[in-house]
Amino acid sequence: MIIIRAKYLGFCEGVKMAIEKTNKALRESKKKIFVMGPLIHNRQVIKKLSKEGLKIIEDLNELNKDGILIVRTHGLPEPKIKKAIAMGVNIVDATCYKVKSLHKLAKQLVKEGYQLVLIGDHDHAEVGAIKESIKDNVVVISSPDEVEKNKLSRKIGIVVQTTQREENFSKIVNKILEKVEELKVFNTICKASILRQNAAYELSKNVDLMIVIGGRDSANTNRLAEICQGNAETYHIETKDELKKSWFRGKKKIGITAGASTPNWIIEKVEKEIERICTKSK
Amino acid sequence: MIIIRAKYLGFCEGVKMAIEKTNKALRESKKKIFVMGPLIHNRQVIKKLSKEGLKIIEDLNELNKDGILIVRTHGLPEPKIKKAIAMGVNIVDATCYKVKSLHKLAKQLVKEGYQLVLIGDHDHAEVGAIKESIKDNVVVISSPDEVEKNKLSRKIGIVVQTTQREENFSKIVNKILEKVEELKVFNTICKASILRQNAAYELSKNVDLMIVIGGRDSANTNRLAEICQGNAETYHIETKDELKKSWFRGKKKIGITAGASTPNWIIEKVEKEIERICTKSK
Repeated sequence: MIIIRAKYLGFCEGVKMAIEKTNKALRESKKKIFVMGPLIHNRQVIKKLSKEGLKIIEDLNELNKDGILIVRTHGLPEPKIKKAIAMGVNIVDATCYKVKSLHKLAKQLVKEGYQLVLIGDHDHAEVGAIKESIKDNVVVISSPDEVEKNKLSRKIGIVVQTTQREENFSKIVNKILEKVEELKVFNTICKASILRQNAAYELSKNVDLMIVIGGRDSANTNRLAEICQGNAETYHIETKDELKKSWFRGKKKIGITAGASTPNWIIEKVEKEIERICTKSK
Repeated sequence: MIIIRAKYLGFCEGVKMAIEKTNKALRESKKKIFVMGPLIHNRQVIKKLSKEGLKIIEDLNELNKDGILIVRTHGLPEPKIKKAIAMGVNIVDATCYKVKSLHKLAKQLVKEGYQLVLIGDHDHAEVGAIKESIKDNVVVISSPDEVEKNKLSRKIGIVVQTTQREENFSKIVNKILEKVEELKVFNTICKASILRQNAAYELSKNVDLMIVIGGRDSANTNRLAEICQGNAETYHIETKDELKKSWFRGKKKIGITAGASTPNWIIEKVEKEIERICTKSK
């Protein structure tokens, strides 16, 4: 039995930076450190940070006035950030720089007179933040079928959630193209996501089993699982405790990948547990 | 036997306007009237206008200095128009207004810093005029396969020959989309072309035979023939003299369409000849 890691997997630059900023704040400041919603979509990391003092809140009213608010990787709506500042709270912006660029380009398109289409999952935090930041006419479209359901103008500007699949993005753009006279598109899909997606795709074609590690609420991890499922038997887990012996019976090549919010220590624990299960069952 | 005309066929506004301007010049001016290349892609119309005094030239040196130069519907490269003006020649601009808009948008994209892609047929007059007018980096792409062959930048602007098929256009845009970060697209396909294409498609599904009337060098007429071929037995003719009795044997429903540069008098002659053939062979 061999375990093969995907060429690209785990923490991306944006997640790394967010955790470093949070750790720094927890270490160096005596103020209370808050984050609105999960900093990243990984419960194990969040649990660890919570133990060290990070407080996750759902509403700005839960903030201490002399606290520090960390803006999560997915960003926050601008009105919320402004409100926190007005409350006298310090801001540590841990928004992923790719998400920041997406906000900027979305705003630019609106300023240039385009009707804005945001391709993404309706209930994703990144999408929600952009929707609330840009008060103008924004249409969120998650699948090609939804194109018909929206009234689109003849001049459309498109941005896309950083963790979307290229295939879904291009299908939707193509459908919109049929309906417009002018189209301006920024492909804001994160290259780190694409690298992980392509690597997972290639690996899953050549193994008997794929283990995808990462938060169940992590969009990019879910996409990795979706992609692998087409090629191999695939299980999406958060931690080693979810692994089942039966999965590995008769399997020789086992592939591993992990979402951009999955830390290396979780990946390593899973890898060791797979080795243990397979050695034991021999 | 019945003959059914496509809902939209024949002369478009641009062609009508070009012929009116040319007739007016021939009628009202005592100067020699020139056109560089065929005014429209219909030899029968050109023959008629030539008899009335229009002189088709291939090179600006053939111009009389006190003549009038009519700019054909497909447009002329700007350097050529400037040269003609510098020679002291009067200009009558009969460029189709859709083609003029295409020139303007192509220029705008270059000015905005996009690498320009012109989707169109390499040897078409409209494409040639734009290529020569915009001296900057223009890439002409005629099919999806050609996308790979070109070195494209990360910021692409796209315009499309007015008589291209929507399907080819969207396939090419889709291929380019995979490669870029920013894309701005103007769908410059002429709606008159699309109306004729859709009407020909619908009609050809419901007849035994399609007769497509128009110049063999007319891009939009050739597209009509391509579209009809998928659904019904199709013949592309320029005049009634090309009709063959054998085509009509056993046929009950005969569809007719005509390109945007085909005059009504040719369509009517073809229609009458079909009636004559079918009545005679009963």
